[in-house]
Amino acid sequence: MSERYRGHFIVLEGGEGAGKTTLARSLAERFRETGRETVLTREPGDTVAGEKVRELLHLELSPWSEVFAFLVSRAQLVTTVIRPALERGDIVICDRYEASTYAYQGWGRGLDFDELERVNRLATGGLEPDSVLYLDLPPATGLERKHGEADALRTGQEELAFHERVRAGYLFLMEDAPPGRWHRLDATQAPESVATAAWEALGG
Amino acid sequence: MSERYRGHFIVLEGGEGAGKTTLARSLAERFRETGRETVLTREPGDTVAGEKVRELLHLELSPWSEVFAFLVSRAQLVTTVIRPALERGDIVICDRYEASTYAYQGWGRGLDFDELERVNRLATGGLEPDSVLYLDLPPATGLERKHGEADALRTGQEELAFHERVRAGYLFLMEDAPPGRWHRLDATQAPESVATAAWEALGG
Repeated sequence: MSERYRGHFIVLEGGEGAGKTTLARSLAERFRETGRETVLTREPGDTVAGEKVRELLHLELSPWSEVFAFLVSRAQLVTTVIRPALERGDIVICDRYEASTYAYQGWGRGLDFDELERVNRLATGGLEPDSVLYLDLPPATGLERKHGEADALRTGQEELAFHERVRAGYLFLMEDAPPGRWHRLDATQAPESVATAAWEALGG
Repeated sequence: MSERYRGHFIVLEGGEGAGKTTLARSLAERFRETGRETVLTREPGDTVAGEKVRELLHLELSPWSEVFAFLVSRAQLVTTVIRPALERGDIVICDRYEASTYAYQGWGRGLDFDELERVNRLATGGLEPDSVLYLDLPPATGLERKHGEADALRTGQEELAFHERVRAGYLFLMEDAPPGRWHRLDATQAPESVATAAWEALGG
């Protein structure tokens, strides 16, 4: 779906500990230095509803309950933050979006992909990112980096095999995406190198 | 869907102030007096997740965000409370279930009925009530009864026209349901009369 807005919608995806938060901040800084208004956001969170959803996701939820919790936040974020920013012409950098649902709840938990696609579309109203930066990292490395983090959601606390499936999911999604939308970044590199590669991938 | 369980799944539906909570308690008492194990529950709520969802529903949410919030609670309630109770052979009395989504978010807010049906099925796993007791009341009367209630969700705070659409939705759903499942109760009656009519409708 190509919508008529002047902004640019960039999504960061990847497993645990891949460095999405650091990259998001670094990219926002670079865009702002060029004079572009830039909105930095994340899923779940960044709206009052999103933060409540974050609390929900610390509980043990049934698989579909977990999906719906992410969708509460996604629908709210698209409506109140992302779409208005894109319409103003801003750059939007979002830490996770619908691909996370396919990777984690589809590949990771084994929920039906078509159903997930359908509910995602209800949550996003069909709004797709212009660019997806996929931070690829062997799950074992990522989990080691994240070890002991206080705010980890339950999805981050699954066993290694789960995260291997998530990674396989991301690689499939990348292959399946419209040409030029997804960019794979080697997240084993130092943060500055990842940021430079990301900036180049975005044509900066 | 007719599932193999020994319990009986009773859902109470109706607009604001129709007396569902009072009737639920009264029915539970009657069933318990006959020696049947009875689980009394409500949507949203009654699980830790459900109570968090209740907090969410006090916020101003986008229409789909609101649907997904109810579904978090529904999926969790079916998985952790309703299904296990029915499998044990208990009576389950649930204050609101999927018909509320059709009435409030479908008729009330105008969301697509087929999509709502689909997401409901994901949340319930296809579990349908054996009996639905619909407490029918002119919306103006119900809203007057509820006036000033502290725990009212945002759906309860809509204008009268919204609640008229919700009632029309319920009446349609009742016509459309499998024969014998829905029972309309005149909720303008005194609580004891409603309870007696409900008991009779359930074949008690």
